[in-house]
Amino acid sequence: MASDKKIAQKGSKPKARLPRGFRDRFGAEIAAERRLVDIIRGVYESYGFEPLQTPTFEYTDALGKFLPDVDRPNEGVFSLRDDDEQWLSLRYDLTAPLARYVAENFQHLPKPFRRYQTGLVYRNEKPGPGRFREFTQFDADTVGSNSPAADAELLMMVCDALEALGLNRGEYIVKINNRKLLDGVLEAVGVPSDDKERRGIILRAIDKMDRLGLGGVRQLLGPGRTDESGDRTKGAELTETQINQVMLFVAPEGYLPKNFDPLLRIGSAVGPSAIGTLGLNEVRGIRDILQAAGYGEDQVQVDTSIIRGLDYYTGPVFEAQLTFKVKNDEGQEVVFGSVAGGGRYDDLVARFTGQQVPATGISIGVSRLLTALQQRDLHSETPLIVVLSMGDVGWSFSVAKELREKLKDPISGKLLVRAEAYVGGAKKKLQDQLKYADKRGAVLVVFAGDDERANGNVTIKDLKRGAELSKSVESRADYLGARNAQATVSRNDLVAKIKEKLGLR
Amino acid sequence: MASDKKIAQKGSKPKARLPRGFRDRFGAEIAAERRLVDIIRGVYESYGFEPLQTPTFEYTDALGKFLPDVDRPNEGVFSLRDDDEQWLSLRYDLTAPLARYVAENFQHLPKPFRRYQTGLVYRNEKPGPGRFREFTQFDADTVGSNSPAADAELLMMVCDALEALGLNRGEYIVKINNRKLLDGVLEAVGVPSDDKERRGIILRAIDKMDRLGLGGVRQLLGPGRTDESGDRTKGAELTETQINQVMLFVAPEGYLPKNFDPLLRIGSAVGPSAIGTLGLNEVRGIRDILQAAGYGEDQVQVDTSIIRGLDYYTGPVFEAQLTFKVKNDEGQEVVFGSVAGGGRYDDLVARFTGQQVPATGISIGVSRLLTALQQRDLHSETPLIVVLSMGDVGWSFSVAKELREKLKDPISGKLLVRAEAYVGGAKKKLQDQLKYADKRGAVLVVFAGDDERANGNVTIKDLKRGAELSKSVESRADYLGARNAQATVSRNDLVAKIKEKLGLR
Repeated sequence: MASDKKIAQKGSKPKARLPRGFRDRFGAEIAAERRLVDIIRGVYESYGFEPLQTPTFEYTDALGKFLPDVDRPNEGVFSLRDDDEQWLSLRYDLTAPLARYVAENFQHLPKPFRRYQTGLVYRNEKPGPGRFREFTQFDADTVGSNSPAADAELLMMVCDALEALGLNRGEYIVKINNRKLLDGVLEAVGVPSDDKERRGIILRAIDKMDRLGLGGVRQLLGPGRTDESGDRTKGAELTETQINQVMLFVAPEGYLPKNFDPLLRIGSAVGPSAIGTLGLNEVRGIRDILQAAGYGEDQVQVDTSIIRGLDYYTGPVFEAQLTFKVKNDEGQEVVFGSVAGGGRYDDLVARFTGQQVPATGISIGVSRLLTALQQRDLHSETPLIVVLSMGDVGWSFSVAKELREKLKDPISGKLLVRAEAYVGGAKKKLQDQLKYADKRGAVLVVFAGDDERANGNVTIKDLKRGAELSKSVESRADYLGARNAQATVSRNDLVAKIKEKLGLR
Repeated sequence: MASDKKIAQKGSKPKARLPRGFRDRFGAEIAAERRLVDIIRGVYESYGFEPLQTPTFEYTDALGKFLPDVDRPNEGVFSLRDDDEQWLSLRYDLTAPLARYVAENFQHLPKPFRRYQTGLVYRNEKPGPGRFREFTQFDADTVGSNSPAADAELLMMVCDALEALGLNRGEYIVKINNRKLLDGVLEAVGVPSDDKERRGIILRAIDKMDRLGLGGVRQLLGPGRTDESGDRTKGAELTETQINQVMLFVAPEGYLPKNFDPLLRIGSAVGPSAIGTLGLNEVRGIRDILQAAGYGEDQVQVDTSIIRGLDYYTGPVFEAQLTFKVKNDEGQEVVFGSVAGGGRYDDLVARFTGQQVPATGISIGVSRLLTALQQRDLHSETPLIVVLSMGDVGWSFSVAKELREKLKDPISGKLLVRAEAYVGGAKKKLQDQLKYADKRGAVLVVFAGDDERANGNVTIKDLKRGAELSKSVESRADYLGARNAQATVSRNDLVAKIKEKLGLR
């Protein structure tokens, strides 16, 4: 109740601060994410996927009680009670709302139903470095087809999207695996696939390979593991022999020749297990379609070490990884790793309807992907021109307007510059206006004093060249001395002169 | 606690349903809104406004206790308690988060600071027809300038955006007023401007002119009003003489000639009032800049009947209206009305810092504007082609891929078609696949049986022409009878034939 009181206090000033785990974003970063999302959208739409936009809120019971991270059921969701006492939650992913949407509209949808959705998702978790409680996902899912074509298509789309974003072959790889294969192996080593709890522990253990290494995973498959902070994670209690067989399946490097056909190895590992054989056929079906459609081993590979943390996957699982090295926060070179993941989840719609509906999907972590791409190339912004205001801001506006109208790409119509009139007051000192333009990152400023205007002239100042000088400008006289960085031209030649200065057609 | 129990129940199936007051959106509607937002963004960016993206959540105390609708303080916001017992709220507009952002980052920002932001905002209100609890706004604001240039610029941007969206002169009008004018009139009639409560009642009364008409507003200025449901709204208790003077100011039609200069009329209405004279100068300042920059009376007009509901405006207020008629839900022709509103709010940042920072902004109601534009012209989607799967979906994928790659605009690179392979299973009956393509709105389907493929051929079926026939197709033989709607061509001629059919270059 202490908090309630704090809110109700009168007269005290609130502190201007962001809630923990959230962030503001500005300018170039937003533009870069928008371009990334636009490119993925363009690819997905070209495949005929339609956009869906579900609301931020769902009824809590529709969202399901279990979060992606099944270690902590009932945690991690932002929930509140509606005025009619119903519990609402903010979506924590885009899959659960899709399942609700499909169940609600099943009869009217084309089958298979193929949609993409991009938007913010929310996790009520402890924030950490680079770990936010609100972030963007980009999902594509196909509901109502159990054909491997549906899975294969999603993988093609992800390959196409990553290449459309400028990645070359060898800089990314999409990996596929199948949950049924591990079930087959576990069946072969004596853990029945209906022992859901142990199966869950084993899945999550293998999923931590990157973080914990072989030794850590072996501990989790066996007696369990205590981390540095003293937290204890329960183990799967497998014997040493069982652990060896599982590890041979999920981490075969070092045991087998490098180009050993994974399907052959898998075939021998699952042996006669019915579920394992089913999984093998699903993997083969997806791979064959990809090959026929022209997607090679340098784009999509079978990799039995890929698990994905989600509990609801029922067969094929996918993960797209970036293979180039980037610097981490400590300055070390590391392989970037996963940027997208997904799989087949045939039971999610059945939660509502009781009727099993086959479904498969893949989700791109937009912020992670953006971070990776930003480490590769720099963002180029549309150049900014500031028209200063020396007593008559109406004049400045009409100049800025003309620049916006005339400096367009003649073919695409795309703007080649952004142009603004200084609106901080028509009587602000020239040096204050120049400081403003500097801070805004302008490449040019345009202005005209009374004399210049009387003579039909206008002055263009090159801020990049003039940047050092402008710091020491104390008067208009000094400023006008910086001749090399500025030019006075006839008002009629303004557009032509700016084109020349910026190297535009 | 009943609700808690309901969530925890095991075994029962949740009902698949949207929370009250929210909606799903799909396909063309999302694309149309995206285009609209992209066009506004393009205009605003061309003026040098930078994007800002604040999070969905703010601390409740940072958001402020008072909602836009001051009739019901402390209501209308979605709030929840964080795990450290702090209250968080979902933003109900984009202005309050801007004030928090500016207060938090004031020192580092260029002044004036000009940003745009678009995104969802949330209102925890009783939903009604066309009234949702989550909707999109598009705001532009300038903080740190008290120059009328800052206000004038926002109005130019809104005019440019509406014209970029295809509206002609005469189809929209941006109206400006100033709160200080009404203060001046009230001062002149004997209501002091520091009588905040009465001033608030009067403002809200005038703002209801459209809904209640002259009679209803007069009631609210006088003794108060009881609506059909029996709800009572308190009045401002003005005398009949006072009401007449106020009404003459806010609704002068019928009293004065049509083209009477509004600034002259305002000048005489506010008389010697200091606050009124200040307001008049602000209005004149904005109008003069607009005229100098080439924006005429057919784009921006002074109109003293414009109020805007928000309590925090301190001077100029703006409203953009669409003047063409549309059909309402009852089929009646009505003028569409307001699509954007804003004004100057010099006190919002001071809530945090104690220091007054001048600010002005305008907010476009994206969904309302979209509704209006959709009533004017129809959406044209990129045509969809479905490649059917007759046993070999790999073939279908490679055909679809080729169509996506080759059917692009040669200059802009823009996709001219969307193309998908049928992924519902390679053995689905032809008629089921055709039904699917119909439901998807495809214009063409492409397929090839074994014989055709052996001969290097492929069949293209025109779905728009074949739509009636396809309903009665029961077998492939019948189907092939519908010759006029389909053509078998050499595989090599596929792209050329589709270009011909769709009238593409």
